[in-house]
Amino acid sequence: MRTVLVLNGPNLNMLGTREPGIYGSTSLADIEAGLSDAAAARGIAIECFQSNHEGVLIDSIHAAFGRKDGIIINPGALTHYSYALRDALAAVGLPAIEVHLSNIHAREAFRHSSVTAAVCKGQIAGFGPHGYELALDALIRYWGPKEERT
Amino acid sequence: MRTVLVLNGPNLNMLGTREPGIYGSTSLADIEAGLSDAAAARGIAIECFQSNHEGVLIDSIHAAFGRKDGIIINPGALTHYSYALRDALAAVGLPAIEVHLSNIHAREAFRHSSVTAAVCKGQIAGFGPHGYELALDALIRYWGPKEERT
Amino acid sequence: MRTVLVLNGPNLNMLGTREPGIYGSTSLADIEAGLSDAAAARGIAIECFQSNHEGVLIDSIHAAFGRKDGIIINPGALTHYSYALRDALAAVGLPAIEVHLSNIHAREAFRHSSVTAAVCKGQIAGFGPHGYELALDALIRYWGPKEERT
Amino acid sequence: MRTVLVLNGPNLNMLGTREPGIYGSTSLADIEAGLSDAAAARGIAIECFQSNHEGVLIDSIHAAFGRKDGIIINPGALTHYSYALRDALAAVGLPAIEVHLSNIHAREAFRHSSVTAAVCKGQIAGFGPHGYELALDALIRYWGPKEERT
Amino acid sequence: MRTVLVLNGPNLNMLGTREPGIYGSTSLADIEAGLSDAAAARGIAIECFQSNHEGVLIDSIHAAFGRKDGIIINPGALTHYSYALRDALAAVGLPAIEVHLSNIHAREAFRHSSVTAAVCKGQIAGFGPHGYELALDALIRYWGPKEERT
Amino acid sequence: MRTVLVLNGPNLNMLGTREPGIYGSTSLADIEAGLSDAAAARGIAIECFQSNHEGVLIDSIHAAFGRKDGIIINPGALTHYSYALRDALAAVGLPAIEVHLSNIHAREAFRHSSVTAAVCKGQIAGFGPHGYELALDALIRYWGPKEERT
Amino acid sequence: MRTVLVLNGPNLNMLGTREPGIYGSTSLADIEAGLSDAAAARGIAIECFQSNHEGVLIDSIHAAFGRKDGIIINPGALTHYSYALRDALAAVGLPAIEVHLSNIHAREAFRHSSVTAAVCKGQIAGFGPHGYELALDALIRYWGPKEERT
Amino acid sequence: MRTVLVLNGPNLNMLGTREPGIYGSTSLADIEAGLSDAAAARGIAIECFQSNHEGVLIDSIHAAFGRKDGIIINPGALTHYSYALRDALAAVGLPAIEVHLSNIHAREAFRHSSVTAAVCKGQIAGFGPHGYELALDALIRYWGPKEERT
Amino acid sequence: MRTVLVLNGPNLNMLGTREPGIYGSTSLADIEAGLSDAAAARGIAIECFQSNHEGVLIDSIHAAFGRKDGIIINPGALTHYSYALRDALAAVGLPAIEVHLSNIHAREAFRHSSVTAAVCKGQIAGFGPHGYELALDALIRYWGPKEERT
Amino acid sequence: MRTVLVLNGPNLNMLGTREPGIYGSTSLADIEAGLSDAAAARGIAIECFQSNHEGVLIDSIHAAFGRKDGIIINPGALTHYSYALRDALAAVGLPAIEVHLSNIHAREAFRHSSVTAAVCKGQIAGFGPHGYELALDALIRYWGPKEERT
Amino acid sequence: MRTVLVLNGPNLNMLGTREPGIYGSTSLADIEAGLSDAAAARGIAIECFQSNHEGVLIDSIHAAFGRKDGIIINPGALTHYSYALRDALAAVGLPAIEVHLSNIHAREAFRHSSVTAAVCKGQIAGFGPHGYELALDALIRYWGPKEERT
Amino acid sequence: MRTVLVLNGPNLNMLGTREPGIYGSTSLADIEAGLSDAAAARGIAIECFQSNHEGVLIDSIHAAFGRKDGIIINPGALTHYSYALRDALAAVGLPAIEVHLSNIHAREAFRHSSVTAAVCKGQIAGFGPHGYELALDALIRYWGPKEERT
Repeated sequence: MRTVLVLNGPNLNMLGTREPGIYGSTSLADIEAGLSDAAAARGIAIECFQSNHEGVLIDSIHAAFGRKDGIIINPGALTHYSYALRDALAAVGLPAIEVHLSNIHAREAFRHSSVTAAVCKGQIAGFGPHGYELALDALIRYWGPKEERT
Repeated sequence: MRTVLVLNGPNLNMLGTREPGIYGSTSLADIEAGLSDAAAARGIAIECFQSNHEGVLIDSIHAAFGRKDGIIINPGALTHYSYALRDALAAVGLPAIEVHLSNIHAREAFRHSSVTAAVCKGQIAGFGPHGYELALDALIRYWGPKEERT
Repeated sequence: MRTVLVLNGPNLNMLGTREPGIYGSTSLADIEAGLSDAAAARGIAIECFQSNHEGVLIDSIHAAFGRKDGIIINPGALTHYSYALRDALAAVGLPAIEVHLSNIHAREAFRHSSVTAAVCKGQIAGFGPHGYELALDALIRYWGPKEERT
Repeated sequence: MRTVLVLNGPNLNMLGTREPGIYGSTSLADIEAGLSDAAAARGIAIECFQSNHEGVLIDSIHAAFGRKDGIIINPGALTHYSYALRDALAAVGLPAIEVHLSNIHAREAFRHSSVTAAVCKGQIAGFGPHGYELALDALIRYWGPKEERT
Repeated sequence: MRTVLVLNGPNLNMLGTREPGIYGSTSLADIEAGLSDAAAARGIAIECFQSNHEGVLIDSIHAAFGRKDGIIINPGALTHYSYALRDALAAVGLPAIEVHLSNIHAREAFRHSSVTAAVCKGQIAGFGPHGYELALDALIRYWGPKEERT
Repeated sequence: MRTVLVLNGPNLNMLGTREPGIYGSTSLADIEAGLSDAAAARGIAIECFQSNHEGVLIDSIHAAFGRKDGIIINPGALTHYSYALRDALAAVGLPAIEVHLSNIHAREAFRHSSVTAAVCKGQIAGFGPHGYELALDALIRYWGPKEERT
Repeated sequence: MRTVLVLNGPNLNMLGTREPGIYGSTSLADIEAGLSDAAAARGIAIECFQSNHEGVLIDSIHAAFGRKDGIIINPGALTHYSYALRDALAAVGLPAIEVHLSNIHAREAFRHSSVTAAVCKGQIAGFGPHGYELALDALIRYWGPKEERT
Repeated sequence: MRTVLVLNGPNLNMLGTREPGIYGSTSLADIEAGLSDAAAARGIAIECFQSNHEGVLIDSIHAAFGRKDGIIINPGALTHYSYALRDALAAVGLPAIEVHLSNIHAREAFRHSSVTAAVCKGQIAGFGPHGYELALDALIRYWGPKEERT
Repeated sequence: MRTVLVLNGPNLNMLGTREPGIYGSTSLADIEAGLSDAAAARGIAIECFQSNHEGVLIDSIHAAFGRKDGIIINPGALTHYSYALRDALAAVGLPAIEVHLSNIHAREAFRHSSVTAAVCKGQIAGFGPHGYELALDALIRYWGPKEERT
Repeated sequence: MRTVLVLNGPNLNMLGTREPGIYGSTSLADIEAGLSDAAAARGIAIECFQSNHEGVLIDSIHAAFGRKDGIIINPGALTHYSYALRDALAAVGLPAIEVHLSNIHAREAFRHSSVTAAVCKGQIAGFGPHGYELALDALIRYWGPKEERT
Repeated sequence: MRTVLVLNGPNLNMLGTREPGIYGSTSLADIEAGLSDAAAARGIAIECFQSNHEGVLIDSIHAAFGRKDGIIINPGALTHYSYALRDALAAVGLPAIEVHLSNIHAREAFRHSSVTAAVCKGQIAGFGPHGYELALDALIRYWGPKEERT
Repeated sequence: MRTVLVLNGPNLNMLGTREPGIYGSTSLADIEAGLSDAAAARGIAIECFQSNHEGVLIDSIHAAFGRKDGIIINPGALTHYSYALRDALAAVGLPAIEVHLSNIHAREAFRHSSVTAAVCKGQIAGFGPHGYELALDALIRYWGPKEERT
């Protein structure tokens, strides 16, 4: 059974517990639970982890080396400057997919560029919690018969 | 029954007919056929259209106004400079999703920025033909019960 | 009787048919009709044309060479990148006036610069449909006794 | 009867008194007299003022607050750096129109951008003294029945 | 009784223990003690915390959510690149004030810009330890009768 | 008895007399009166002065040389381009503190940088009229026993 | 017999019919006729095509795939922004040579860079109509015995 | 007898009255007196004027039109941003020479560029008060037999 | 006996355990062991430490204050953005040498600049594990008789 | 009989003697010999010269003044920064053509711009040794009946 | 008797021998002869030298170390990029004055900045051959009683 | 026996003969002698060469082709702009190591980037004369058993 590491970076632990008018009432736990169900339905196991610490995220990526089959990562604001996170993803060489809840291309200019996306298979942005599920489908397709291209 | 306009921009008509070693043997017609099946399985109709002409793409976006329920668009290289295409998407106000076959964030610097993504719901890049299918799922979720966020 | 080519670029055909709360209920046809009356009252004929195609706009500028006495052009978003449109205006050498409905200097940064204005007699921005009428008056004054300067 | 403050900034007092071959023989007094006639013909009063002093221009804009119905301003070279002038226009909240005798978009690069236009209703550039008259018409239309847009 | 979280970022723990000729002999403990007294005299409680870890700082900001009434933060060099810290401050929505011991505007170019100040109420820089006390006063005034503006 | 020159630059004379919904009903006279009381309570005299003229502000800074003990200055929009004001502050060598009513770091990009702050002791931004009072306290502390650092 | 597609982009149809004092009296038809003779003399067939439409140019490049042996292209002003044209040239993989009548390196700054040259074999600029003939010779040499280098 | 306007801009009135260790004990009056003697010895009259007001400097340049034979100007910090001063110098068309006491090319980056030098005959920087005398000699040579070049 | 802190930043713990074809089979432990021997042979003690956490690296630099005689640091990707690490190195004032395994000047553009090198004695890049040994020799020479220069 | 100076700059003497797999086995002497034959066949004499010294190249350009009828120059890497070489070409005023063996527009970013091309008649890049021959033909056409344009 | 090295860089040997309509008929030999007379009249010896070689200019600056009392240098186009020349001037530490015949601040943008002026006492630009004489006077004043400032 | 070319660029001949307080009393001859001894002790021969001429340095690099086993080069200020030197190093393909006496990363901004380092094996900066010896050790390790990485 394939397992996927689902990583969430800084501040994503605050989802759902504040400003529900803006961010909805879905907490990160809710998202992870929903994603876990979706994964199970597809015959996949996921391991979810969140940290506000760049170093802890890097450690967990390293730990996935040889133990996981893929990574789904929402690096939060680290997306825009953490070359260390980028190098971690490149180092383990697992297929990774970058997810953003919001459409970062429609927000402040500093959010338009990603230093981590270049070492991922692709990027999915703007679809809220559903983005993680799309990333799961993308990973499954990536593992499958090689009919897609980059 | 909901219908989606699937737009492909410049040069995407050349898929599969050249350099199969690099781009695979899947033609745009194949992609569209597969996507059509996937849409049907989801109870959705799609109308596919490709053009190498910025103006024709704009015309077709306008024509979708009031007639379609959403747009999936791969603007090709127009992504990086066609403010006219951006304005067309903004003008019709339909939910649009930008798709790229390749991970544009990992290619030449000029491909890292999109002038059209800011007026779309989100962007999906790097998953080959499967990206269109993911976009279809994203649109369906967007139309559905409002539990997601941006 | 002098005749003026009134050119409108991408997306301006959508005026009035969408988002009337923002853009008012005046359609491009309304604007053209009003401008036609205004022109007639000044003893001038106008020929109105709109296209979402850069190439078609260039063709129509070429066609005006030797047949029209001036050009009023709202290039839409092409304003910001179409050096080909710029060269077309420079090529025919007719007095041209650039018009924008909105005050482009107060919008997104990418709208602040115009690659076409440098080959026009001047630019009028921010006055809605009335801007075309002002451009008409500017052309008439330009043709008249040479008392103005640049 | 509506009254408009017509402001001219640095060096515009030198019009017509030097280099008539280039700038014509129309002095600023001539322009103001002509504009005064044009205003009278439209049932409007204008008050003209010129200064080479940024501070004096700001004072006069403040003085117009609650006393004038609109402002026509040619800030001269202050256009390109006077954020203080910009703030003054924003502070009084009167409808203002920026006018330039020459087509600033066709001159040196530093003249292509305006720090003041963003707080005006619009900008008219390149039509010589006639530009002020066009601005007057634009103001009248602005005050009139709200059929225009931005 | 209102309580304020006083956060100090990387390297501020080194104050007073080295190079007293430059930085004085006041340690961070001294500063915190003095600030505690000043707070008590104003009927406010403060909780002081320092960390060299971006992630720990973010955790402590999150922990303040619903428990503290305001934040005084000197992010040290994180000021210049930690968008994650910025998002943390924005997420909890508490009134925050950015303090810098030195006048960062008079130092190296990279210290002139702050990525965190935009989500704070204001910034106080250049007044040494006294800056924290000024920030305390600013918070008190912020909480008080709404007579001030931004 | 120590005396402080309190300088306000362009457009600050308009405070309170317009747009009270946004800027409150506190006029500059109110701010100065309140600050005068606060200064008196601290055994300090202040002399307040406002001008929309860069040159007049420079003159008044020069006049403070040898006559005042410190300067509190809100240069308004001159903050962003007046190198002449900067040189004036540097020339007299009095301790100066830059104050901004709003948090300039959270507004338009052109307001993020200050050409004058580098020659001041520090900058206080974002606390409305209270900022001047904080600056007064900062000056007093600056004059007092040297326990602070930069 | 080898055949070459000779493509001319926007505005090149206007050659010779206007401003003969500047551009000479040679029309594009003249250039094409002369080039046709020159090609025939070298045992090569050429097919000439001009369009002001980016999309039509892309279509014609696609159509050359598998049918032509090389492309000579003067993209006109599209040279400076049409990434779609660049992708079209890259897609068909035919040896292409970029030609410019004028020395674009000695004109306005925006003409100094080419987004299309990077996917061509080389660029020839500044030699008027003769440049096409030079390009023909370059193609012939390219096809010939492989003794040249890049 | 030829007369030269010697203009000094913001803060140059402070020379010699402060920080004599750095700037020497020569006041502006001393410089002007010495220059007056030097001018008399060369059979030239000078009229000296200093102002901290951009507008006053512009007025005095205008007043020199038709009355003076040349201008020596040290614009102080206005050198780096006053396009209005630049336009004033261009407007009167008198031969002008820009002088700086210090070597501005060896100071802060913002002092390396001059917006006014482009409309002067030349620039002399770095020679203290002697620079004005050198400028005087340069003007005399400029008026004399045309043996120099640009 | 002198002791040196040998710090390795993010991802350097992954050396040798992955992609041996590219990075060789030398692990960080191997490098540290080899360096330890090399140090012992020179009569020096080294203490090796690696962390993926910026904060932990800063803590360890602080802990070296007063306890170590020098620092050899390979900050990994933190080199390119961690101003906090820079400040930590500056704070302790120990002689530090920056080492990079690869020649960062020949890799991606973002790796060409170092924000930490400016507070080190020097930088050694491109020599693989041997670079640490070279750094050791450089430190020894730095401590020795002062015959070198900067 | 017309004579042309054929100049080759730094490192071009190394052609053919190293890395024949990449650069072919054609040496500069071979190229010059081939070009000499091609010139003779066209009734033209060429004088070839190569130097790695910017100054020697400038000397040889000066020496061509009044003695040669044109220059073909491959400035090597000096292309990208030698304004002195540019000025030399401008000084002698001979028709010059810039040649590059490789397509510099498809290589590293620093090779995309030429500081010398602006003072040449045109640039030919990407055609290996054949480029010199093309340049010869271009010069002949330039000297001939004036039927070409710029 | 004091002696001054008068250095002229690339292309200045071409003065007077070409384009006399633009550059006058004064050759560099004429300029040097005139300057020699002017120097003799002031009791100073000059040694003039011109080279088109950066390295030779550096050698001659080095040779002046300990043998000359000052340097007058017109680096020609090397002004804009030769950091090696800059270092040479800095190395010998002789008072140097940079001279330009033309007003470089009024020419192409690349001529506005000087990399060498920062290590000279000052710069004189725009006064033709007379500029060297002005530089001579500036050196004499520099050597004399220290009454000037920088 | 392996031999290494040790190249020193512009101004390095001045070491030790000037400003001993800053640069020490070690001359380049001393450095070369010391390095020669160090090389001999390692069984290697070195050939030292210094020139202030870019062209001469390029010639000597070319001459090393096929005759030397490696290059140690301190390009002096040419480091920052000489693409010709870069190409020379790339052309001969010998392992080269760039050395700088000072820590160029801690000096003026223009010294932070190297155009030559990208074609070297690595860069050593900041260790004075010892840097050359470190480079020697790096070369030896490079030639030795391939256990290091880049």
